[in-house]
Amino acid sequence: MKTPPILVVGSVAFDDVETPFGKRENALGGSAIYFALAASHFTPVGIVGVAGKDYPPEAIQLLNRHKIDTTGLEIVEGKTFRWGGRYHQDLNQRDTLYTHLNVFADFKPNIPLPYRTTPLLFLGNIQPELQLEVLRQLDQPKFVALDTMNLWIKTARPALDEVIGKVDLLIINDSELKEITNEWNLLTGLRQLHQRGLQYVIVKRGEHGAYFSWRKGLFYAPAYPVAQAVDPTGAGDSFAGGLLGYLATQPKIDAKVLRRATLYACALGSFCVENFSIDGLLNLNTTLIEQRIQYLRRLVRI
Amino acid sequence: MKTPPILVVGSVAFDDVETPFGKRENALGGSAIYFALAASHFTPVGIVGVAGKDYPPEAIQLLNRHKIDTTGLEIVEGKTFRWGGRYHQDLNQRDTLYTHLNVFADFKPNIPLPYRTTPLLFLGNIQPELQLEVLRQLDQPKFVALDTMNLWIKTARPALDEVIGKVDLLIINDSELKEITNEWNLLTGLRQLHQRGLQYVIVKRGEHGAYFSWRKGLFYAPAYPVAQAVDPTGAGDSFAGGLLGYLATQPKIDAKVLRRATLYACALGSFCVENFSIDGLLNLNTTLIEQRIQYLRRLVRI
Repeated sequence: MKTPPILVVGSVAFDDVETPFGKRENALGGSAIYFALAASHFTPVGIVGVAGKDYPPEAIQLLNRHKIDTTGLEIVEGKTFRWGGRYHQDLNQRDTLYTHLNVFADFKPNIPLPYRTTPLLFLGNIQPELQLEVLRQLDQPKFVALDTMNLWIKTARPALDEVIGKVDLLIINDSELKEITNEWNLLTGLRQLHQRGLQYVIVKRGEHGAYFSWRKGLFYAPAYPVAQAVDPTGAGDSFAGGLLGYLATQPKIDAKVLRRATLYACALGSFCVENFSIDGLLNLNTTLIEQRIQYLRRLVRI
Repeated sequence: MKTPPILVVGSVAFDDVETPFGKRENALGGSAIYFALAASHFTPVGIVGVAGKDYPPEAIQLLNRHKIDTTGLEIVEGKTFRWGGRYHQDLNQRDTLYTHLNVFADFKPNIPLPYRTTPLLFLGNIQPELQLEVLRQLDQPKFVALDTMNLWIKTARPALDEVIGKVDLLIINDSELKEITNEWNLLTGLRQLHQRGLQYVIVKRGEHGAYFSWRKGLFYAPAYPVAQAVDPTGAGDSFAGGLLGYLATQPKIDAKVLRRATLYACALGSFCVENFSIDGLLNLNTTLIEQRIQYLRRLVRI
């Protein structure tokens, strides 16, 4: 087993999803899966997560075919995490129908030894305490990106603040920025986070694109306008996968590289929403990805 | 009286506005006023509209000081149009408290003779029948931009379609695009409008920026991230004012010039929301405007 250039720790799930464009049951999902598939188009990825005995061997094979190392994916007695959701006509609105944590309820990340020197880490949206545990087990990663959600902002604030203090990049959406900073204004919220010591922040705005903020400036990446968005599930994790995937191909990571990486993030997010579940992330190649990057560059050109 | 380079036909109003940042009563407002003040930083503007005897002479003087020709602003017996609204903490949400049309209810645009050869025309958001009447009175303007609203899309569709067929540029927001085209997808909606013969479309997305679409391409202008948005009233009309104002300074109008103009539109919209009523539009100069244009260009630069 080799050390993968990128490690992701996150959820592995079955999703039952209904959108105005159709319905999928038992679809492969979870933050670690979306992230890894998106990043796999750039570099090999290692996954740390947990699934139940019901997790299909074909899914593992599919991940392995995509250069995803599943050594860190524990298969334990019980059922895999399951999420059910229904999207409205406006795909930005959704109702969670159920969340069955199942084996994910007792998830304790255990990083395989060869993963501990992984240079790039994505802490998917899990309890901040577990994210801290992951950081304790790793050997000084070069770059750590963090995702979180309103639940942890409300219920696990001290641990979340501790994780934020240890990462290089926080990836959140508009409403999470407001909740974390208690600021309604984007610039004031970003300034507060940088003043607390955070070097980089990305604020995702879905179909509107994303801001990448560093201490000395702000960059805006437009969203790729998709011909048809059918299922937004996993778009945020695919975004992060595109971002870290691109970073893995670069000799160094600075604000300039992160600006370019944000375009790759937008591109991978756009592929994700065009199809149900992980399907939009499967049949990609460098040409398709680079076409979207060129489109995004042209989109803002005077 | 000279022919102004730009003519606007729209509402002239008193606004009573409450936002989380304060309250203003009897504030100068109306689409024609916002538009004219924004455009006045580029070129003289002529206004066609109606106000009541209660409209203060100081307001007329203020407009005139800004190179706004008010010959076409009729002052008639009765009260000026009045709108009352309250914005939520999320400034994208607002409740209309009242709409007193007053003298605006009987508004019949009567274009002064020297205005009839105006090259650039902005048809502010009034009944499509009145917009058609304005077009009948004008002598082949070089470029016509049109604003409208959901009310006319629902209640005056045949007339609105007729106006759309006669203008060069339609300026709408996301939800209006959906209502006009019955399409939830941006690209499909835009394609439908171009197929109907419309040359240019701008889709405003408020704090997210704006799309400018022409038959052969799409451009995205990011919003200027303001330090503090206090009152969004009039932002759309200021946006249009910045756009046509810039166009008036250019020898020809094509997609390239319109891409640049969309940045000026975003800049003027951003000045508007930073202050109550028209205040954000008053103390501007070329340097302040160009600083925002440079910021917007830098914001999307890799």
